[in-house]
Amino acid sequence: MIDDLPAGLTARHLADHDHPRVLAVLDAWWGGLKGEAGSTERALLLPRLYFQHFTTTSLLVEHDDGAVAAFLVGFLSQTEPDTAYVHFVGVDPALHGQGVGRVLYRAFFALARSHGRRHVHCITSPENVASQAFHTRLGFTASGVQPDYDGPGLDRVAFTIDL
Amino acid sequence: MIDDLPAGLTARHLADHDHPRVLAVLDAWWGGLKGEAGSTERALLLPRLYFQHFTTTSLLVEHDDGAVAAFLVGFLSQTEPDTAYVHFVGVDPALHGQGVGRVLYRAFFALARSHGRRHVHCITSPENVASQAFHTRLGFTASGVQPDYDGPGLDRVAFTIDL
Repeated sequence: MIDDLPAGLTARHLADHDHPRVLAVLDAWWGGLKGEAGSTERALLLPRLYFQHFTTTSLLVEHDDGAVAAFLVGFLSQTEPDTAYVHFVGVDPALHGQGVGRVLYRAFFALARSHGRRHVHCITSPENVASQAFHTRLGFTASGVQPDYDGPGLDRVAFTIDL
Repeated sequence: MIDDLPAGLTARHLADHDHPRVLAVLDAWWGGLKGEAGSTERALLLPRLYFQHFTTTSLLVEHDDGAVAAFLVGFLSQTEPDTAYVHFVGVDPALHGQGVGRVLYRAFFALARSHGRRHVHCITSPENVASQAFHTRLGFTASGVQPDYDGPGLDRVAFTIDL
């Protein structure tokens, strides 16, 4: 479904049974950030419901041997019929710099457009400067830091792009 | 929009600006369960995105003075066109036993049916026996405890009802 990935990688839609496999790579990919509490935080941000009910706009990239290489969890806004939202994206650090994240976002943009969406929103944490630079390179516009955006102490930077 | 609530309560759809108000009542309503870590867990389960992108199937109940009395966050499955999902429900403990939760679920069922949905799913934690009894009384069928359903150590009981 995506033909511009590096050799040895293929993409498909996420499925329910991918949930434990994706959670299992997060600690390694995030460098164990914030230890066990960080691990629980990441699991709570990615409950199984995304792998059950938003698979049509969510993608998994695998190596030829089936190992998880990257994923994107996104959905179509129910409230705003012209908007789609990217909730969580991960790329194996060993693959950074090869354009895998860019390919995933562009595939999501194409899916969003096919459902009539004209804007895509996402957020990241103020500490994640690599993510902010990535989104800016992709063409997103940043909001600046919004204190307590997702709750007390959960500051976020919001990004928007027009398709 | 809901006419069978106890006197002094009114319901409307959730809105973006309700997010901090709802998060602010969770600790009191959950009795401070698990302290600060529990507070963060609850915030991570209710990111602002639900108050932005799933408002059409999410409800807030307020007292006449505007204080938050109850809420239900739910959505229509993108993957399964006949399914809707209830993600998070809270009722002020001072109002327990007055049927507010039942009214919220029935309002959600009506919204789901109006979008052609025939099944509603939700989950709860094995420790929350009050929630399990509530869902059983409403007519939901339980799955039994599913270990690591939402990630390592995050066991869940899954519930389903046919509309």
